[in-house]
Amino acid sequence: MRGSSKFSKIPTATITRLSIYSRYLEALAQEGVKIIASDKLAQKCGINPAQIRKDLAYFGEFGIRGVGYFVKELLFEIKRILGLNKAWKMALVGVGNLGSALLAHQNFVRQGYEFAAVFDIDPNKVGRRLPNGLMIHHLEEMERVAPEKNVEIGVIATPAAHAQQVASRLIQAGVKAILNFAPIQLQVPEGLAVENVDFTVKLDNLAYHLTMGNT
Amino acid sequence: MRGSSKFSKIPTATITRLSIYSRYLEALAQEGVKIIASDKLAQKCGINPAQIRKDLAYFGEFGIRGVGYFVKELLFEIKRILGLNKAWKMALVGVGNLGSALLAHQNFVRQGYEFAAVFDIDPNKVGRRLPNGLMIHHLEEMERVAPEKNVEIGVIATPAAHAQQVASRLIQAGVKAILNFAPIQLQVPEGLAVENVDFTVKLDNLAYHLTMGNT
Repeated sequence: MRGSSKFSKIPTATITRLSIYSRYLEALAQEGVKIIASDKLAQKCGINPAQIRKDLAYFGEFGIRGVGYFVKELLFEIKRILGLNKAWKMALVGVGNLGSALLAHQNFVRQGYEFAAVFDIDPNKVGRRLPNGLMIHHLEEMERVAPEKNVEIGVIATPAAHAQQVASRLIQAGVKAILNFAPIQLQVPEGLAVENVDFTVKLDNLAYHLTMGNT
Repeated sequence: MRGSSKFSKIPTATITRLSIYSRYLEALAQEGVKIIASDKLAQKCGINPAQIRKDLAYFGEFGIRGVGYFVKELLFEIKRILGLNKAWKMALVGVGNLGSALLAHQNFVRQGYEFAAVFDIDPNKVGRRLPNGLMIHHLEEMERVAPEKNVEIGVIATPAAHAQQVASRLIQAGVKAILNFAPIQLQVPEGLAVENVDFTVKLDNLAYHLTMGNT
């Protein structure tokens, strides 16, 4: 596709910010707001205005100088860029407390992500049907079930000690992207995408705020 | 305190990156690595080298040109900047699946965060003692228990419908910083810090990677 070589150089940090912009633009669109000034968008997202303009410049011309961005147009473009104009199928591995919370998380479906298959190794869980209709498969069935359900993203919610083995199985089953909740650094082959969810990074922001507030 | 007015202008994005640097530096320190080149640090953190240098320049001179940063020194400084040279006390509200997963999350304690009080409204849960020794208090007891336990950070893991009410109670009890897992935008007074955990932002990064990989 034309431009893909240019696109592939976009820094991860820009992609993360695009995602944050899209969350806020979605809220604005729901409130019926038509236009947003880039300074306002920047302020609401906690990002400086120059950075927003730089991020969006990767993809072409958006907005009108001195006026702002058209909310719906910008949202549509960002979603197209991020590949959110389709529903992504996910496999969850690990139906403990965290896994159960993720299955119940309403934001996933709202944002275009859907659990299509669920795995565990606990004999008390395997074979059980979840409230959403999915059956819990044994991890051993990964290679068969994941391709059958068109799984593209693996979500690891197992204890740290099992996470690497689970990642390898997901990769063997053809999964190219992993969202990892286990507090370990996964080893994956080149070309695989891994995102680690680390709640403590958010806590560090709060700690910083409290530290500065107390001086 | 001298310099606090300069510090208070540091962008949130910089603080988030400092937190990411500290995670990686900690891993390096554990491996016994003494010095890291800024390019290597940048690459491992998925951030461009100029950005790292700019981030660290807010706080003074670090590292040696052409050599790199001293891992332990830089880690110590970042932790000091972020206020992580102390243990922060947290209150958890909502002992459902997500709350239980958070209570069991090993990374919190490792990074200097500790649950000091736990709240719920479910009569089947209130009064129960958790494996970590904490008793689940009723939300009504917040104003008494939170100050008693020196709670500084509130963690909201309730359904979205209760999150605003819980936030208000936390604030009334003197809590100045909130980590919010509920998928709603909390309304809080000026000066309060709120961080929202939105797993879908991470998924957007993966979706982008998959989209680009497929072109």
